[in-house]
Amino acid sequence: MPFLQPVGFIVSLLVLALSAAMLVPAAVDAIYGNPDWIVFVVSAGVGVAVAGMGALTARCATIGLDLRQAFLVTATSWLAMSAVGALPLYFSTLKLSYADAFFESISGLTTTGSTVLVGLDTMAPGLLLWRSLLQWIGGVGIIVLGMAILPFLRVGGMQLFHTESSDRSEKLFPRPGQIASAIGAVYLGLSALCAAAYMVAGMSPFEAINHAMTTLATGGYSTSDRSLGHWGAAVQWVGTTFMLAGALPFLLYVRVLQGRPAALYRNSQVLALLGLLATAILTLALWLIGTGQAAPLDAFRLTAFNVVSIVTTTGYATADYGLWGGFAAVCFFCLIFVGGCTGSTSGGIKMFRFEILVRLVARTIARLPHPHRIYPLAYRKTPIGEDVMTGVIAFFAFFISSFALLSLALALFGLDFVSAISGAATAMANVGPGLGPVIGPAGNFASLPDGAKWLLSFGMLLGRLEVFTVLVLLTPSFWRA
Amino acid sequence: MPFLQPVGFIVSLLVLALSAAMLVPAAVDAIYGNPDWIVFVVSAGVGVAVAGMGALTARCATIGLDLRQAFLVTATSWLAMSAVGALPLYFSTLKLSYADAFFESISGLTTTGSTVLVGLDTMAPGLLLWRSLLQWIGGVGIIVLGMAILPFLRVGGMQLFHTESSDRSEKLFPRPGQIASAIGAVYLGLSALCAAAYMVAGMSPFEAINHAMTTLATGGYSTSDRSLGHWGAAVQWVGTTFMLAGALPFLLYVRVLQGRPAALYRNSQVLALLGLLATAILTLALWLIGTGQAAPLDAFRLTAFNVVSIVTTTGYATADYGLWGGFAAVCFFCLIFVGGCTGSTSGGIKMFRFEILVRLVARTIARLPHPHRIYPLAYRKTPIGEDVMTGVIAFFAFFISSFALLSLALALFGLDFVSAISGAATAMANVGPGLGPVIGPAGNFASLPDGAKWLLSFGMLLGRLEVFTVLVLLTPSFWRA
Repeated sequence: MPFLQPVGFIVSLLVLALSAAMLVPAAVDAIYGNPDWIVFVVSAGVGVAVAGMGALTARCATIGLDLRQAFLVTATSWLAMSAVGALPLYFSTLKLSYADAFFESISGLTTTGSTVLVGLDTMAPGLLLWRSLLQWIGGVGIIVLGMAILPFLRVGGMQLFHTESSDRSEKLFPRPGQIASAIGAVYLGLSALCAAAYMVAGMSPFEAINHAMTTLATGGYSTSDRSLGHWGAAVQWVGTTFMLAGALPFLLYVRVLQGRPAALYRNSQVLALLGLLATAILTLALWLIGTGQAAPLDAFRLTAFNVVSIVTTTGYATADYGLWGGFAAVCFFCLIFVGGCTGSTSGGIKMFRFEILVRLVARTIARLPHPHRIYPLAYRKTPIGEDVMTGVIAFFAFFISSFALLSLALALFGLDFVSAISGAATAMANVGPGLGPVIGPAGNFASLPDGAKWLLSFGMLLGRLEVFTVLVLLTPSFWRA
Repeated sequence: MPFLQPVGFIVSLLVLALSAAMLVPAAVDAIYGNPDWIVFVVSAGVGVAVAGMGALTARCATIGLDLRQAFLVTATSWLAMSAVGALPLYFSTLKLSYADAFFESISGLTTTGSTVLVGLDTMAPGLLLWRSLLQWIGGVGIIVLGMAILPFLRVGGMQLFHTESSDRSEKLFPRPGQIASAIGAVYLGLSALCAAAYMVAGMSPFEAINHAMTTLATGGYSTSDRSLGHWGAAVQWVGTTFMLAGALPFLLYVRVLQGRPAALYRNSQVLALLGLLATAILTLALWLIGTGQAAPLDAFRLTAFNVVSIVTTTGYATADYGLWGGFAAVCFFCLIFVGGCTGSTSGGIKMFRFEILVRLVARTIARLPHPHRIYPLAYRKTPIGEDVMTGVIAFFAFFISSFALLSLALALFGLDFVSAISGAATAMANVGPGLGPVIGPAGNFASLPDGAKWLLSFGMLLGRLEVFTVLVLLTPSFWRA
């Protein structure tokens, strides 16, 4: 089938690369003298065998994808990589069910960070590293997706970023490959910087490397059950800084390196994100101080870390903010949906969509008393076209209705009200923890029934691929040429 | 000031009418030999004095409102009537604070039905009747608002119903006054029918008349603390039937009486509402049966009554569905937002907005793989204009963000997570009960702090007047001519 052939070829190549990456934790386990290294070698062997056969069967000389093939590649590659990435966890001495292993793997590759594992502090280094690697690989995948693929697919208003990402107007990068290398170098450089900072702040090299990968990817996997609460204030400030770094558009770092620092602080998405974070941190810190729950400095550190962790969709925790009272719970529930900037590693609804919605709504209300005046809509000096507007609107509608349906489905598996709605939200926004005693920041997803884990896995995929990319595959019209 | 003069005149007339209506409960209390009749006479005197002076000061020969004046009349009339309607409750032997009395009054006039009163079963008949009258008057106000005023104000996509309500195309009613009388007659007739049915089903005449008024108005005030759970299955089926009747577009009843029954069952809003109700009732009944909580027939009666009560935004309860488990809680939470049809007495987001959103979203997803195909958007064979679409979208955006802000503000007053979010939702959708032990179907709003009651009162007004009508008054551009 010529339609599926290039799709199968690309997906197979990606799975091959992921399988090869399993040799890294294998080597680490071997160095540490841990017998688990064999698990990674076997998993890599299975992955290489299956994906190799796939690649050989579907290989083609030139890869030019049409629109429908690009949709199919996006959804199936994340799914296939999650399935294969689960193998080391499934074969390991942890004795996980495949539902658990898949949940952990897709939670990694979608940079969600919800976990079913306990006992991280004493876990084999290879497994810890594999979880971190899944998030790090997922993170760079998201940047590529957001910059190069989604604008092409015109999903959820992403066509706004078409010119910016292909960047032909300015000719700074004559070929797309050059952008990709620049972004890759920035991702690697920031990760290294983050690891160094973590070490200076008191982490061991192994801990620092793992957390650097899951911080930049705004993933949130940790090497301790207590997440970053296991370390001191210095480590937490490093975490706050680099989570934020992971939630900004990576293209802007390239601009800064090209000598245009204004690109970063004049970007409207960045300003909106910083404004929101400042408001939320200040409000919650005042709440903690006012209710006598923390001294001013502690309150500021606690709220800064946890708000940045939720809004950037990282999902580390340093405190059980579920115990901060109803106001904090409602705050964090609302913040789960928000997300960082487009073109970063963070998930959620994302800043630019709120910016467009605010413009639309402000115009609607301004026109009510004066229906004959003209109020043009623009974003970064470009008029907002009807296709962008309906894309953004449809994104909100789908995100919220998928959230409602997922909550209902989770509740069918016996989850209580708070776990069901916060679990659906945290999965779709790729955040990590939910609210309440079960899946809150001090809890864990291990106790949920398998059905709920599969549903949450689907929710993570749906949110990560901006909803449409998955749902379009379920419409009959997609399959008619 | 010529801008405010006609506004003041109309609002004064409406308050005068409401004050005159206080003589009805005064007479009833006098007949029952209850000394509270004096409270109503005094309140009526205060209302007539204040509104009479207002009317005399602002009286004008011709009343032609421009757009901005119409906005101002809509918001201030509901507010002023609520303030005056609270007087008998404030002066009564119940010893309510004014915050409580105002909450009860606006909850009546907005047909919400949240209450701060306990001991309804032994309360003076005049007070019970006043609460029912507030809802009955509010109900007919909403029909007029939805049919005649909101389409003119072009709020939230309501311009869709412009031609239908003014109805000049068909010349069935040459003058708007005739429509108003026909609708009034239908409202009165259905109320009488409902009262008769309640009596046949076992209520006393006083109970039947009170509940008929609050059923048709989809308000939900009862004469018993146990709401309709106080009566038997027959009464509950009557309630289910007439709550549904109150949530259908009243213009359609006029059409049916004119010999066009198809108008009712071919209307897309009606079909959408019935489809949603059938799905929700069936799903929840299966849940109750499957989890062994009720026998099939009971399950059907319980879910039919409570689902219809929430979706029509009435707010009666026959059972504490908070005890039905997480799935039921998530279901009822989602159903709170939905609402009935436009042109009825029910609140919430309303069916036609969901219909338009579904069409918009379906087109967006159908166009993704085939961006160059053309998919026209239509509603009842009329193309959906850009203004209707952005109106509907902005409505959703405002409704949801007001809900989030109201939840946050309620939580600031110390409400727990579930009470805060369900309280905000139930107030804005004019439903009545929330979720959880405090304000759930078995609870009461009495224990909330005054600040929370004022916030909820504002939420009811916001939801009842379709959000924009209130918010537009807060924009500076409204006040510039």
